[in-house]
Amino acid sequence: MSRAVGPVPGAVRADDLGAFCAAVFEAAGVPAKVARIVADSLVCADLRGVDSHGVLRLPIYLRRVAEKMIDVAAEPRIERDEGATVRIDGGNNFGAYVGQRALEVALDRAGRHGVACVGVRASNHFGTAAYFAEQATAIGLAAMVMSNASQTMPPTGGLRPFIGTNPLAIAFPTREGAPFLLDMATSHVARGKILSAAKKGDSIPLGWAIDKAGRPTTDAQAALDGAVLPVGGAKGSGLSMAIDILSGVLTGAGYGPHIRNMYEDWNEPQNVGHFFFVLDISRFLPLAMFTERLADYVALLRAEPKADGFSEILYAGEHEHRLAQARRANGIVLPPALIEELSALGAGKGIAWPASIPGAPGNGKVAAKV
Amino acid sequence: MSRAVGPVPGAVRADDLGAFCAAVFEAAGVPAKVARIVADSLVCADLRGVDSHGVLRLPIYLRRVAEKMIDVAAEPRIERDEGATVRIDGGNNFGAYVGQRALEVALDRAGRHGVACVGVRASNHFGTAAYFAEQATAIGLAAMVMSNASQTMPPTGGLRPFIGTNPLAIAFPTREGAPFLLDMATSHVARGKILSAAKKGDSIPLGWAIDKAGRPTTDAQAALDGAVLPVGGAKGSGLSMAIDILSGVLTGAGYGPHIRNMYEDWNEPQNVGHFFFVLDISRFLPLAMFTERLADYVALLRAEPKADGFSEILYAGEHEHRLAQARRANGIVLPPALIEELSALGAGKGIAWPASIPGAPGNGKVAAKV
Repeated sequence: MSRAVGPVPGAVRADDLGAFCAAVFEAAGVPAKVARIVADSLVCADLRGVDSHGVLRLPIYLRRVAEKMIDVAAEPRIERDEGATVRIDGGNNFGAYVGQRALEVALDRAGRHGVACVGVRASNHFGTAAYFAEQATAIGLAAMVMSNASQTMPPTGGLRPFIGTNPLAIAFPTREGAPFLLDMATSHVARGKILSAAKKGDSIPLGWAIDKAGRPTTDAQAALDGAVLPVGGAKGSGLSMAIDILSGVLTGAGYGPHIRNMYEDWNEPQNVGHFFFVLDISRFLPLAMFTERLADYVALLRAEPKADGFSEILYAGEHEHRLAQARRANGIVLPPALIEELSALGAGKGIAWPASIPGAPGNGKVAAKV
Repeated sequence: MSRAVGPVPGAVRADDLGAFCAAVFEAAGVPAKVARIVADSLVCADLRGVDSHGVLRLPIYLRRVAEKMIDVAAEPRIERDEGATVRIDGGNNFGAYVGQRALEVALDRAGRHGVACVGVRASNHFGTAAYFAEQATAIGLAAMVMSNASQTMPPTGGLRPFIGTNPLAIAFPTREGAPFLLDMATSHVARGKILSAAKKGDSIPLGWAIDKAGRPTTDAQAALDGAVLPVGGAKGSGLSMAIDILSGVLTGAGYGPHIRNMYEDWNEPQNVGHFFFVLDISRFLPLAMFTERLADYVALLRAEPKADGFSEILYAGEHEHRLAQARRANGIVLPPALIEELSALGAGKGIAWPASIPGAPGNGKVAAKV
C-alpha cells in the first residue's frame, strides 16, 4: 500500500527548515535580512526542543504581516543613547529582528562599559529568549534577556489574565559543552506548551491553568481560553510584573493590558517591550578563571547523589543544548499536521517543503518521493 | 494573680528595638557604625513582617562574632574598579554592613554611568535584601539585589541540599505609597519561615520541604534537618544557580558547597557573595514619567476583578510596606520566647530590654513594671 502524495512527515535538516521559513517570509514581502533572523530564531527554538516557540509560529507571524500588524521594512532606531544605557524604538518590526539589533547594541556597549542595559519599545513577540542569550555567551559575556507579552496570567489575587507569561533568560559562558542558559516563562509552564498540547489534542496537568470561569482545568483548549498561573504564586506574579516594568513601563512599550494579543488583536501593533542586560565577565575576573570556577561548580553538581528517576543532574540549558546537537545532526521531526500546514503555506507561494533526511530517526518508513 | 517579674512581652518601638540590638552588638565589640547598620537591617525585616530575617538572628550573629567567624573591624575594600563594574572584598564583616557599603558604591556608580554592577566576596548572611533595594528606590533608582547562601535546597534531579535559597530582590520607585519591591527566596518558601515555624512549634504545609531521607514532610524541624524545595521545580533550581553564579562564581566568593553554614560551621568564615545591580531610570525616561506610567499600571491592577478570598490586589512589597507603617506606629510584637532569649542576652551585657508601648496592640494586659 502506497502513501498519499504530499510532504513527507520525516526529519528535515535545520538549515533547510530555516531556508524554507526565510523563503516563505521573503515571498510575503519580508526583506531577506529580516526573514533570515526571524527564521533562525524559530528554528533555534525547534532545535532546543522549545517547539512552542518554533516554526509553529510561522502562520501567525505571516498573518500579522499580511494584516499589516508588523512593519517588515522598519529599521530599529536608537532614540536615547547614554552609553551604557540605550533606549530603542523597534519601529514595529518582528520581535526577533528588533531584538537582534538591540542585542548587538547591548553586546557592543557591554564591551565598552563593562555592563549595558538596552530597553526596547514598539516591538513584537520575539520568540525564544535563548536565541539572544546564547549569542552573548558565545563571545564570553553574561546576559539577562526579558520581554513582556500580552495578558495570559491573573496576578495573585486576580481572577482573569492581566500579566503575560513574561520570559526571563539568564546565561553564562562555560569552558566546554552547553552554556548555562536558564530560559523560563514566569508561568508554571510556558503558554506555548499549552498551545502545543492543544494542537496535539493532549490534556494538561492540573495546576497549570484555570479555565474561563476561574476553575482548575486539564483541558488545553479550555486553558487557552482561560489563564495560565504564575509559578510559585506571588513569586511568579511579582517576577512577571518586574519584567513588565523593565520591558514596558521603563521603555515606553505597552504593559499589562496595553500589550495587544498576537492572536486576537488585528487593529493595532502589539507594542511589546524587551530588556537586555549584558555583563562583561572579564571586568570582574579573567574569563578563563570564571569558566574554571563554573566548571568546578558543575562538577560538584554532577557528583551529587541523584533523586529517584534521575541518572544525572543537569544545569539549566544543558538538556536543550543536547537536543539541539542531536537535532542538528539528525534533523528536526515536526508533527504531521504542522508539516501539512506549513507546506501548504509554502506551496501557495511556490516554495517546496524541504526534503526529509533519508534514513534519519523518524524517517524509518520513507514514503514515495513526491 | 500577678505575672512573674521579667521582660514585658508587649509591643516595643522599632527604634528602641534597633537601639537595643545595636547596644548588644557594641557590647560584643562591634564598632558603632557596623552595629547600627546590622541592627537597622534586622529591625527592617521585623517591620516588614519578614520575622525570619529579623532580630531572631541576633543570637546567631553574636555567636558568629564570639567565635571569631566575623571580623567586625574589617572595612570592605574595592579590589577592582572599572567604573560601572566594581568588585569588593567584604573582609568578612557582617553581611548587612558589607552590603551597605557595596550598595553605596552601586548607587554612586549608577548615578555616574546609568547602570552599575557591584559584586561582593568574603561576606556573610546579609539579612533581608529589601533593606538594600528600598534604599535605591528612595532616591529614584531601580535595583536588583541578590546573594547566595549556604546549601539548603536540592537542585532538580538531586537528593540533598546543594544550592541555597538564594534571595532575589527587584525594586522600583513609585509616585506614592510603597515602592514596588519583590523580595523572594528561590525556594517555595524562605528557609527562615520554616525556622520561624520550628521556633513556634508549628507544622508546615506539604510541598515546602523534604526530610533528611528525601520524604515530603510537614514537620518544621524535620524540614530544617532535610531540605526546602526550589520554587517551581527546575525554574527555581535554575534561578538559584544563576544567583549563585553572579554572587559567587563571578565575585570570588564561595558557591554551592563552598559556602559555610552560619549555624553549623565554626571553623571558617561563610564567604557569602552578593551582587548589586542598580539602574538610573532617568537615563531611559524622566523619573516622573516612569512613576506616572507605573501608577497607571497599578491603577489597572487594582481595578481587576478579585479572586475568591481577596478584597484587593496588591503589588509586590505593598503588604510589607503597610505592615512596616503599622509596626512603626504601633510597635513590634515579638514572640514571648524570643523576647526572653533576647532580653537575657542583653541582661548579660547590662542592656535592658526596651519598655513596651503602653496600650499598644498586643499590650492589652500590661504586666507589672519590672
